[in-house]
Amino acid sequence: MGAGQSFELRQWPSGGLDSIFHPKSVAVVGVSNTPVQLGLMRPFLTCGFAGNIYPVHRDGGTILGLKVYRSIADIPGLVDYVVFGTPAASIPSLLEECAAKGVKAASFFTAGFGETGTEGGKSLERRILEIARYAGIRLIGPNCLGLYCPESHISFIPDSPLEPGSVGFISQSGGNSVYVIRAGASRGLTFSKVVSYGNAVDVDESELLEYLADDAATGVIGAYVEGVKDGERFRRALREAAAKKPVIVMKGGNTRSGARASASHTGALASQKHIWDSLLRESQAMGVESMEEMLDLLVAFRYMRPVRGTRAGIVGWGGGASVQAADECEAEGLDLPAFPPSLRNELARHWLPTGSILGNPVDTVSWSRDRAGFAKIIDAVAAWDGVDVLILHMGVIGGLMGLETMLELFPVVTGAYIEAAGKTSKPVAVVFHSNATPEVGAAFFEQARKCQQAAIPVYDSLGRTARAIVRYAGFCVSHPGWV
Amino acid sequence: MGAGQSFELRQWPSGGLDSIFHPKSVAVVGVSNTPVQLGLMRPFLTCGFAGNIYPVHRDGGTILGLKVYRSIADIPGLVDYVVFGTPAASIPSLLEECAAKGVKAASFFTAGFGETGTEGGKSLERRILEIARYAGIRLIGPNCLGLYCPESHISFIPDSPLEPGSVGFISQSGGNSVYVIRAGASRGLTFSKVVSYGNAVDVDESELLEYLADDAATGVIGAYVEGVKDGERFRRALREAAAKKPVIVMKGGNTRSGARASASHTGALASQKHIWDSLLRESQAMGVESMEEMLDLLVAFRYMRPVRGTRAGIVGWGGGASVQAADECEAEGLDLPAFPPSLRNELARHWLPTGSILGNPVDTVSWSRDRAGFAKIIDAVAAWDGVDVLILHMGVIGGLMGLETMLELFPVVTGAYIEAAGKTSKPVAVVFHSNATPEVGAAFFEQARKCQQAAIPVYDSLGRTARAIVRYAGFCVSHPGWV
Repeated sequence: MGAGQSFELRQWPSGGLDSIFHPKSVAVVGVSNTPVQLGLMRPFLTCGFAGNIYPVHRDGGTILGLKVYRSIADIPGLVDYVVFGTPAASIPSLLEECAAKGVKAASFFTAGFGETGTEGGKSLERRILEIARYAGIRLIGPNCLGLYCPESHISFIPDSPLEPGSVGFISQSGGNSVYVIRAGASRGLTFSKVVSYGNAVDVDESELLEYLADDAATGVIGAYVEGVKDGERFRRALREAAAKKPVIVMKGGNTRSGARASASHTGALASQKHIWDSLLRESQAMGVESMEEMLDLLVAFRYMRPVRGTRAGIVGWGGGASVQAADECEAEGLDLPAFPPSLRNELARHWLPTGSILGNPVDTVSWSRDRAGFAKIIDAVAAWDGVDVLILHMGVIGGLMGLETMLELFPVVTGAYIEAAGKTSKPVAVVFHSNATPEVGAAFFEQARKCQQAAIPVYDSLGRTARAIVRYAGFCVSHPGWV
Repeated sequence: MGAGQSFELRQWPSGGLDSIFHPKSVAVVGVSNTPVQLGLMRPFLTCGFAGNIYPVHRDGGTILGLKVYRSIADIPGLVDYVVFGTPAASIPSLLEECAAKGVKAASFFTAGFGETGTEGGKSLERRILEIARYAGIRLIGPNCLGLYCPESHISFIPDSPLEPGSVGFISQSGGNSVYVIRAGASRGLTFSKVVSYGNAVDVDESELLEYLADDAATGVIGAYVEGVKDGERFRRALREAAAKKPVIVMKGGNTRSGARASASHTGALASQKHIWDSLLRESQAMGVESMEEMLDLLVAFRYMRPVRGTRAGIVGWGGGASVQAADECEAEGLDLPAFPPSLRNELARHWLPTGSILGNPVDTVSWSRDRAGFAKIIDAVAAWDGVDVLILHMGVIGGLMGLETMLELFPVVTGAYIEAAGKTSKPVAVVFHSNATPEVGAAFFEQARKCQQAAIPVYDSLGRTARAIVRYAGFCVSHPGWV
C-alpha cells in the first residue's frame, strides 16, 4: 500500500490474506456421497494437497478412503481452512465450532444467503460475519467455489491444471472462475491464484485486489465483478492495483436484465454503467465486454511482446480471409499500411503462386511448396519499419486439397510462423481461425499448444485479435516500462 | 423474373444458368500431379459424379486411374463443363478449343486476370469473354473454385458433404465458399448450390441472385460479395430475390484496407458503405458483418420456428453465464421480461437446488438429479405467454464435479432440451457455449448434431444467438407468411 493510505485504519489487513492460500490442513464439512459434495473434497486429493484432509459429517464412516469425523471438534489436529457444503442454516453453529478449533479461513459453497433477497438470508450473513470477526476467521463466499492456488495444491476442480503461473483472477461467479482456468489452460494461461468469492460477505473484491496488487507471484490481474461492496475502497484498490500491474475487469450485470440476474446470483447491487466506465478510466484498469475478451487480453499480457503502435502487417492465406482480416482489423482500430514498392518487389522475389496478394495483408499458399521462401516473405514484412506488430493467420478449411492434406500442411505453416516469430524482435500474434469442424478444432488446439510453448500468443478470431492488440498497444504506449 | 422486367433485353437469360449445374460430362484441363491440380479433378471422382470425366494435359498418360487426353479436341465424347487449372495466358486458345467442342460452361481456378490490376490481366479477361460470348459458353470466374451442387455430385472439395439441401450460397471468395460448406455441415446446413465465382467476368453476382431467386431447390440465399459488376442490375436482382426468399449478404472490403485487399483479391471496386447499406435497406435483404453471423442467420432460417417478437425466456446453468446471457441478450435487443409471481411459484414446485435463480434467466442444475422436474421447469417457461422465444443454454466447464462427470451429464441436458422443444410450439434456440477445451469441443459437436437431427437450431455464443434471433424476428414480423 502506498504511503497515502496510511491514515486508514484497516480492520482486516490485506497482508493477512496470504495465509489463506497456504493452509497446512483442511476440513470439508458436510461431505457426503453426492457428486457435488464429493466435488468439494476430491480436488484436495487429486491435486496432491500435502497437508491433512479431514472430511466431516455427522454420520461418520469413510469417504474417498479417508476417515470421516462426526464434528469439527472431533478432528485431532489443527485445521487452517474449512470448506462448507452444508445448508445455510447450519453454518452459524458450525462456524462457532471452527472458532473453538482456531480455524483461519472458511469458504462456503453453500448458497441461500443474501442473494435470496430474503431477510432470513441477509441476517444469516450478518450472523456468520459476526462470529468470524470475533474469532478472526476469514470468510470466502458464501455462494462460491473458494480458492484455487496451484502452488499450494488447493483447488475447487478435481482435474485441475497444476502448473502455477502469473495470472491472478478473482470472480464473483464460480462458473466464470472455472471457465477462466479451463479455457485459460487451452490458451496457455497458468495462474497464481483464482478466487471465486461469491457474495463477498467478508473477503471482497477490494481486499482481493489489494492483495493481488502486492502478491509477488501475480503479474497480471483479471476480475469478474457483478457488484461492489464498498465503492470508495474499490475505487482506491483498483487505482492502486492498476498502478502496479495490468488489471482487466469484466463487469457483469450491466443491463437491466443482467442487473436483475446478478442480484439473484450474488446479491450484487446494480451500479450504473457510466459510473463504472469512469471508474475504469480514472484507474487505468481495462474493462472488457466478455469472458472471451478477458482471455484474449490475458493472453496478450502473458505472451505478446510490447506493442508500441497500431500499424499491423498481416500474412496468411485466403483471399476472403484476407479481406475480412483487413476489414476486421481496421474496424477495431488497427492500421494496415500499404506496402511500399521496395517491399512488394522483395516479396515478389520469392515463390508466390498466381493468385497471391502482395499487399497488406499478404495472401499466399507459397508454404505449400516452398517453406523457406514463405519464411522469407514473413521475415520481409516483419523487417519493414512501417509495421509495429505482425499478425500471422491460418484458417484450415480444406478446399481443393481436402481436409486431410490441409491438416498435414497445418504444422508446416505453424512451424514457419514459430520460426519467423523467433527471428524478429517485433511482437507477433498467431491466429488460427475457421476452426468450425470437429477435426479442425482438435488440430487447432494442438498447433496452438506449439505456439504457446514458443511463447507466441494464439487467437481464434481475427477481429478479437485486432481488438486485443489495439487495447494492449494502448497499455504499452501509456506504460513505456512494460516489457 | 417479374413482368416489370420484360422491357429489358437479356443477352444472357438467367434461365440458361440451370444447365451449368447439371453437366453430363466434364473435362479438367491442365491437370497434373500437384495437390492443387489433382484437387480440381478429384472431387468429381470422390463425390460420385455419374457422367464422363476427362482429364486433359499435353503430356497424356493416366491420372487417378483415368486416361489423360492431350487436348480438348482429342476427347471422344461431348463435354458440357470444363474446369481450367492452366496458367492465365493459355486460356484464350484453350477456350477456342472448347468453343469448337460445344462446351456449355467453363470455370477457371486460374488467377492472373483482372485482379492483378495490370493491363495484360484485364485484356485477357476481355479476350476470354469475347470468345465465350461468341461460342455461347458461360464462364465462372476466373480466379474461383467453381460449382458445388450435391444433387449433381459436382464439387470443388474432394471430401464434400453430399446431402443436398435448401441453402443457396454465392461467394466471390473461394475460401468463404469452402468455409460455408464445411462449417455449415457442422451446423446442420445443407446446400442446393454453392458458387465460387471469383472475378465474375461473365456469370456475376446479379445473374446468380436472379437464378437462385427462381431456383425451386433454394429456400434461402446467402452471398459473400466484394464488388458489384453492374450496380443497377444488382439493385434489382437483390430486391427481387429478397421479395421471394430470405437473402443474407456479407459485403467484404468495407474498410479502406479491406477495399484494397478485395481489389487485389477479385478486382472488386470499392463501394461506399452508406451506398451498400441503403441498397440493403431498400431491398429488404439482410446484411451481416461476418461469415459467422452469416451461418448464424442461415441456421435460424433453416431450423428456427418463426419468431414473432423479441421477448425471450432463458433457461440454463451457471450464475455468471446467466448474468452474461442477460447482458448479451439485452445488448443485442432482446427483452427478458421478469417472471410473474405465478410462474415463479410454479417453478419453485419442482426441485430447485439452493443457489438456483428463479428469475429470467432461470439458473439451475436441477437436471443433475431430477431430469423430469427440469423438463417441467422449461415447459413452464415455454408455456408462459410473456415470452416469444425460448433460449436453452449450457456451458460445459466441469467445476466441482470435474469434466468427465459433466461430459456424462451433457447428453442428459441435451435430451431435456430436445424433449422440451418437442413439447412447445414456440421457437427454441439451443446454445452450447464455453466450448473452449478440446474435449468439450468434440462433445459440443456431438450434442449439436442431436439437436439438428431434431430440427432445433444450435449456436455456440449467447450474444450471437441473441443477435440472430433479433434479426430473424425482424424478418418474421415483416413477413407474416413465413413459416
